[in-house]
Amino acid sequence: MNIAIVGVGLIGGSIAMRLRETHFATRIYGVDKSESNQKKALQLGLVDEIVDLETAIAKCKVLVLTVPVDAIMQLAPYILDKVDQQVVIDMGSTKINILQHIERHPNRGRYIAAHPMAGTEYSGPEAAIRDLFRDKVMVYVEAFKTDEDAFDIAENISEQLEMRSVFMNAEEHDMHTAYVSHISHITSFALALTVLQKEKSQGRIFELAGSGFESTVRLAKSSPDMWTPILKQNRENVLEVLEEHIKQLQKIYNNLEEEDYDSLHKLIKRSNKIKRIIR
Amino acid sequence: MNIAIVGVGLIGGSIAMRLRETHFATRIYGVDKSESNQKKALQLGLVDEIVDLETAIAKCKVLVLTVPVDAIMQLAPYILDKVDQQVVIDMGSTKINILQHIERHPNRGRYIAAHPMAGTEYSGPEAAIRDLFRDKVMVYVEAFKTDEDAFDIAENISEQLEMRSVFMNAEEHDMHTAYVSHISHITSFALALTVLQKEKSQGRIFELAGSGFESTVRLAKSSPDMWTPILKQNRENVLEVLEEHIKQLQKIYNNLEEEDYDSLHKLIKRSNKIKRIIR
Repeated sequence: MNIAIVGVGLIGGSIAMRLRETHFATRIYGVDKSESNQKKALQLGLVDEIVDLETAIAKCKVLVLTVPVDAIMQLAPYILDKVDQQVVIDMGSTKINILQHIERHPNRGRYIAAHPMAGTEYSGPEAAIRDLFRDKVMVYVEAFKTDEDAFDIAENISEQLEMRSVFMNAEEHDMHTAYVSHISHITSFALALTVLQKEKSQGRIFELAGSGFESTVRLAKSSPDMWTPILKQNRENVLEVLEEHIKQLQKIYNNLEEEDYDSLHKLIKRSNKIKRIIR
Repeated sequence: MNIAIVGVGLIGGSIAMRLRETHFATRIYGVDKSESNQKKALQLGLVDEIVDLETAIAKCKVLVLTVPVDAIMQLAPYILDKVDQQVVIDMGSTKINILQHIERHPNRGRYIAAHPMAGTEYSGPEAAIRDLFRDKVMVYVEAFKTDEDAFDIAENISEQLEMRSVFMNAEEHDMHTAYVSHISHITSFALALTVLQKEKSQGRIFELAGSGFESTVRLAKSSPDMWTPILKQNRENVLEVLEEHIKQLQKIYNNLEEEDYDSLHKLIKRSNKIKRIIR
């Protein structure tokens, strides 16, 4: 089957690698507006050929959209206008707005809103990894609005990627990802800004940066071109979670300021319950 | 050389493992007020014998203090009262208060304020790891106030642990650790509390928890018995950093609320500079 990867970065490149490995893809076409990404994708053998979007639509059965979510908002209706029996899989991190945007499109049935819960803090074709998706979750949003044959192909791709499927509506999806993904990124961005601020006056600070710091701050390496649109598209949920997060930090601040160490101990102990959820 | 490990948990247990392996320790004595820790430490072979503090002082050349920092505040002067040629190594995470506390003690020269910049989010004897310290930094604080022969022994232990030495004064140390360690923990505690709050009404949220969330929140598994005293002892620095961190989060909140995506993009891009500091 011919596959087009629209946006050959971390996610698109990793999908290409795996679909080539399993021989699911006969030929892989890459679409990317960045010339540097085009070159790297070819050099790394992620794609067989770089083409424009029209050629990709003409030649491929499946188009995988792995561009930033604001670009998906623009591209999705444009691509749907031109497809017939092709399958368009949107791999973006937010869903409410894009699904409202194409709700009444006559080719809505060819569109699959998916979200692979996998990634790293790196971006670009050189960040692609063979096993990025193995044992991770693929969330399908409003899958019931997709044509049966199109969904079968998407599920087949999930299987090639060795992923587990979960189904949600758009509201659930965007709210949940605000809690478990978007807020983690914001926390890391803010932590990096806090520490960089101090570094100006205190160069030696980073001799001490241990593994705890590294793991908490590593998401701050994430691309602003990818993340500004995500926060924009999921603005309301993110604002709600961020408000709650600042409230929790303020609670810790107040306990410490008032030297109420019993309450501080209780808060930390309560936070330990996260053990139930992560290994 | 006979070694006493006062507090046989993650740090103390890991030191014991390594000093046995390199044959630096002839016999290792464990002191711990928790009966469960005593049993585990013996079962795991971390220590040869469990003794009380007096016996440890009488039998050992080196006493390594790896109890929570508030316990160190109590124990340090008590132990210094009783030592003669022994060496007391404090491995706690905060230094200003404890060093002021023993400043004028006649046996101040036998005391070494050290801080191994290594750890995990787990605690107790069963969390001990052989290579916890390899290639990590050991910070020595006000090392010039320690007797030459005592310091030589401490440096020798650092070498057994395969650590690199860094020297600081107490003010530098406490401020720097507030930035690179204590604030990361607070961030994780607050993130866990935020998400757990939501979970009450939304059980499904954790199907989506990916590796980004895990790495940002993992420090929230850390022990409240260890961390409440650290935050208490380093209260002023932590309050200062936490205030700045909340300010940075509020800035992100405001940009998002005002839909000022250019400024948001700039903030995220600036946070990317953390790449210079962590791999």
